[in-house]
Amino acid sequence: MAASLGFRGAASGLRYWSGRRRPVGSLAAVCSRSMASKTPVGFIGLGNMGNPMAKNLIKHGYPLILYDVFPDVCKEFKEAGEQVASSPADVAEKADRIITMLPSSMNSIEVYSGANGILKKVKKGSLLIDSSTIDPSVSKELAKEVEKMGAVFMDAPVSGGAARSGNLTFMVGGVENEFAAAQELLGCMGSNVLYCGAVGSGQSAKICNNMLLAISMIGTAEAMNLGIRSGLDPKLLAKILNMSSGRCWSSDTYNPVPGVMDGVPSSNNYQGGFGTTLMAKDLGLAQDSATSTKTPILLGSVAHQIYRMMCSKGYSKKDFSSVFQYLREEETF
Amino acid sequence: MAASLGFRGAASGLRYWSGRRRPVGSLAAVCSRSMASKTPVGFIGLGNMGNPMAKNLIKHGYPLILYDVFPDVCKEFKEAGEQVASSPADVAEKADRIITMLPSSMNSIEVYSGANGILKKVKKGSLLIDSSTIDPSVSKELAKEVEKMGAVFMDAPVSGGAARSGNLTFMVGGVENEFAAAQELLGCMGSNVLYCGAVGSGQSAKICNNMLLAISMIGTAEAMNLGIRSGLDPKLLAKILNMSSGRCWSSDTYNPVPGVMDGVPSSNNYQGGFGTTLMAKDLGLAQDSATSTKTPILLGSVAHQIYRMMCSKGYSKKDFSSVFQYLREEETF
Amino acid sequence: MAASLGFRGAASGLRYWSGRRRPVGSLAAVCSRSMASKTPVGFIGLGNMGNPMAKNLIKHGYPLILYDVFPDVCKEFKEAGEQVASSPADVAEKADRIITMLPSSMNSIEVYSGANGILKKVKKGSLLIDSSTIDPSVSKELAKEVEKMGAVFMDAPVSGGAARSGNLTFMVGGVENEFAAAQELLGCMGSNVLYCGAVGSGQSAKICNNMLLAISMIGTAEAMNLGIRSGLDPKLLAKILNMSSGRCWSSDTYNPVPGVMDGVPSSNNYQGGFGTTLMAKDLGLAQDSATSTKTPILLGSVAHQIYRMMCSKGYSKKDFSSVFQYLREEETF
Amino acid sequence: MAASLGFRGAASGLRYWSGRRRPVGSLAAVCSRSMASKTPVGFIGLGNMGNPMAKNLIKHGYPLILYDVFPDVCKEFKEAGEQVASSPADVAEKADRIITMLPSSMNSIEVYSGANGILKKVKKGSLLIDSSTIDPSVSKELAKEVEKMGAVFMDAPVSGGAARSGNLTFMVGGVENEFAAAQELLGCMGSNVLYCGAVGSGQSAKICNNMLLAISMIGTAEAMNLGIRSGLDPKLLAKILNMSSGRCWSSDTYNPVPGVMDGVPSSNNYQGGFGTTLMAKDLGLAQDSATSTKTPILLGSVAHQIYRMMCSKGYSKKDFSSVFQYLREEETF
Repeated sequence: MAASLGFRGAASGLRYWSGRRRPVGSLAAVCSRSMASKTPVGFIGLGNMGNPMAKNLIKHGYPLILYDVFPDVCKEFKEAGEQVASSPADVAEKADRIITMLPSSMNSIEVYSGANGILKKVKKGSLLIDSSTIDPSVSKELAKEVEKMGAVFMDAPVSGGAARSGNLTFMVGGVENEFAAAQELLGCMGSNVLYCGAVGSGQSAKICNNMLLAISMIGTAEAMNLGIRSGLDPKLLAKILNMSSGRCWSSDTYNPVPGVMDGVPSSNNYQGGFGTTLMAKDLGLAQDSATSTKTPILLGSVAHQIYRMMCSKGYSKKDFSSVFQYLREEETF
Repeated sequence: MAASLGFRGAASGLRYWSGRRRPVGSLAAVCSRSMASKTPVGFIGLGNMGNPMAKNLIKHGYPLILYDVFPDVCKEFKEAGEQVASSPADVAEKADRIITMLPSSMNSIEVYSGANGILKKVKKGSLLIDSSTIDPSVSKELAKEVEKMGAVFMDAPVSGGAARSGNLTFMVGGVENEFAAAQELLGCMGSNVLYCGAVGSGQSAKICNNMLLAISMIGTAEAMNLGIRSGLDPKLLAKILNMSSGRCWSSDTYNPVPGVMDGVPSSNNYQGGFGTTLMAKDLGLAQDSATSTKTPILLGSVAHQIYRMMCSKGYSKKDFSSVFQYLREEETF
Repeated sequence: MAASLGFRGAASGLRYWSGRRRPVGSLAAVCSRSMASKTPVGFIGLGNMGNPMAKNLIKHGYPLILYDVFPDVCKEFKEAGEQVASSPADVAEKADRIITMLPSSMNSIEVYSGANGILKKVKKGSLLIDSSTIDPSVSKELAKEVEKMGAVFMDAPVSGGAARSGNLTFMVGGVENEFAAAQELLGCMGSNVLYCGAVGSGQSAKICNNMLLAISMIGTAEAMNLGIRSGLDPKLLAKILNMSSGRCWSSDTYNPVPGVMDGVPSSNNYQGGFGTTLMAKDLGLAQDSATSTKTPILLGSVAHQIYRMMCSKGYSKKDFSSVFQYLREEETF
Repeated sequence: MAASLGFRGAASGLRYWSGRRRPVGSLAAVCSRSMASKTPVGFIGLGNMGNPMAKNLIKHGYPLILYDVFPDVCKEFKEAGEQVASSPADVAEKADRIITMLPSSMNSIEVYSGANGILKKVKKGSLLIDSSTIDPSVSKELAKEVEKMGAVFMDAPVSGGAARSGNLTFMVGGVENEFAAAQELLGCMGSNVLYCGAVGSGQSAKICNNMLLAISMIGTAEAMNLGIRSGLDPKLLAKILNMSSGRCWSSDTYNPVPGVMDGVPSSNNYQGGFGTTLMAKDLGLAQDSATSTKTPILLGSVAHQIYRMMCSKGYSKKDFSSVFQYLREEETF
């Protein structure tokens, strides 16, 4: 524990860093510099996202203490020599830095506050980072409980990119002077680690980003579809939009029309990428936030309902850019 | 006429150029190269957009033959030594390259096909460029009539930017081998001149772009508002969005939240820029196109209605980014 | 002709009648009273709606002069002894009261103003009733042309109900003192004949009604679906809504949930009734009207887009209440 | 207590009654019949709705034990001879039938489960009726806690009408064989008492009804506005809609256009009635239900956002039919 705190003290000597792409070179430098003192890191939740994230930590030299409700998913790690714990409480007993990556608010509550939850055994001074995308008010509740135990909680949901290649963006909420410590670990798994403010603000930032993403993706799909039906060439139209004020990430980096760009889900039958179900879930969180803060979100609400409908029309496992296909397809019954 | 055609022949020696930003240097080069043979250019419609466009042509050395239904707006040009015509027909008699910049489909029809319209006196081989934003089907109709007279019609609506600084984008539809001739003139008024396809495709491209622009602007306003109400700092949130998948022209170049960026309408009480009424008009054209091509545009329709409501709530003359103010403001009655 | 005008004079002796259900008894009385002087009535457009409407006129004792672009559909009438004309102009030569029932604005223009259109041979004093659902501005244009020929034009689109049983509502626009004459014929085909104001107002009233109908139908489908998913019994929920402020025609007369009511399309696999394509068309007209009058129609626009999407998802021939199925269905791909 | 249960046993001799308007005569009969054995009824929450409801119970001969967080609002009742308690727990000690009427889920939780809440002193066999409009999942939670204490909980939110005149509709969820007991009291305050199913189903039914109400109200406002701008007479248009398939409670009973009907808020500058803020709140509950049951509610969501925007534009205290004014008004800044 002392070692770990010492380590974190060293890490906090890093310059405060927010909102800029960290040069890959310096990241490597930091990681090799701290290699000597690397203590085990807890990791709970080894699903589609958690699995490659955990592997990236291992690549950067961190020994892991792993846990997942489905013991099978831990096998692979056990065989590779990592330590598997019997419960979240067990992880908390063995590691003083823990990352959680869970599918819903309910799961986060269970893992932290449940009968065998982290809080049953958490050590004073531990750093608990929840990378799940959940309701910001739940993050705030968890932070309070964690604080009572003398530990530190940060929310650090992930946005965009591919977990495998470490090309993720973390949006981090929590006490500012612990940010460097969180960033040490998160920087091993993502190319961008952004400090967003107090606890819960990581969630809020991600929710706002993904709502805008959903809106501009559907907007791009509608605009491309309208243009194509009006006789325009899809590639030329994409080029024009991208040189003009309609330009957005969905049009220039992740175009939803098959054949316009290579290497994106739309050119691979909408396989891979970010599933429609996940987008519907995030838009549900945006809706909740908007209702509780009494913020009008007209397009955000309609976007939510569109992804909701797609989920019940067979698009749930396709990438969210498949909204182009959804709007366009003409079935004949 | 022969001279003019000869000139256009020379111009067409320019390399075909579409979809890339033309270096300012080379533009100047082209313009000075052709200075010697510059014949007068007709210009009809000297409103908010037409006025600075005409001045940019003059700056590039083109003598103009001007016309506007309101004679007063021509005064300024007359005093500066330009020639003022008595009707569109009169312009067509004196110039074989004419640019029209008019507020609606009805105005374009009147100026071309009316009792004293261009078509009454148009010379064979003339190049008629309509920069008005109108219904693509009207552009196609006008093109047919112009073609019957042995002349060439192109639609070249303008998008974004400021007319005064010549920072406009022209989206051009028409016969491809006349594009270079159009580009010679349009390149004096805009930094981007994009070839979009057959007649009417300039309009279609602009309509698609502006629909996507409206959607992403409203989306940005909703996301920023939701974030701010959730406790995030506006500048930090903008930074995060711009590094993430929510990034779009409305978030990174024209942010609608006062104080986030300098030099944009949101930081100047939404003065200047692109008025809400004009956006509502363009979205009406998008709606018409969508209805006639049977294309579903859910977000495009809602965006249309939002700008429609803003027009009746006192926002008609404000920049279209004032949707942020519209969504946010809390009046107390 | 004189006879016909005399007849119409007699008809106008009927009490002015608007907005109340005409007792079936008195309708029969009127019809038998005028039986003696019944002159032939022209009928153009014998499609799904026109066919049963024409038959109801025959039942009430009117000889018909028929025309349709597809000669086959006239056969049935010819065999029954009715007269078939060779063109709309031919109909106009032989009848001084003509009813048209056509699928679109373009068709109405063609039938009235085309090369062999009604206007080529229309007699002075003729009464021309267009029951097509078209753009009100087209109705007004046609009325002007008809008036120049000394004849009378009325728009009388049809709403709801079944054409076969004569259970239709006509919404009539035109000169008020000709309403009784129109009502004589329309009353044979529909149980409600409503005077709406000047020419075009029949179309406007129908467009408003059908937009509200679409909105409340989708609203009913959403509310029933939400209730059912929340555990409520569909029949009980319908009963509650119908006793409360959510009550509407779509909930109490045409409930979209299978099994809640008998004798409606939802209980017959959404066969029959009013097709999704037709509703999408009417909502397109509402959208056009709203855009040209600058009226915000948020829900109307979204309803339009929902029916537009349904058309491309295999619902085009189903009754418009199938929006319940569209919202509910969970396919597994 | 025995007396009370005995009374409730007698009441349950009433015929099971759901979904039909109870004749006023028979209501009076029942009430006078049970007058002799009337034991005190607890009443917690004496706001805009609770106040007249409590008075109607008094009119029917029930002595009350009252409580409100704001002691002032109890004064009036105290002066009239009713008993005022010091806390919800105190009410529960003195009465075995309690009605609660509170503004939010949080308030209901506090009144039931708080430090001085009902559950601290509730007697076995007590009947607790919560007429607040809250999240159905909260109702279910409260029911579980109440059941543990050996008492009965029912949710009975109120819809439409005026509390003063007793013209309310109660939508009741809970154990069916206790419905008659609830109905005895609720029938004194409302003309309709509807059994909806298990606990929480009263809330669900109300939420569905009010969502459909909001949708059809906005739809009516849009249709009336579109018709008026198209030149139709408002009264005539309302008449036509009400005879046609657009007919709904909002068009025929509560028309939002000033001057069309007497005695409704639209003819009294939108004073009184059901406030925009309350409608926004109910639509927030509908949104929550839809998100948690994964039900698509496109129009419900847009309706929610419209009322959300109205709340920040000075309409919060106006009747919800003021959406007509909101859509129509043209301010000049």
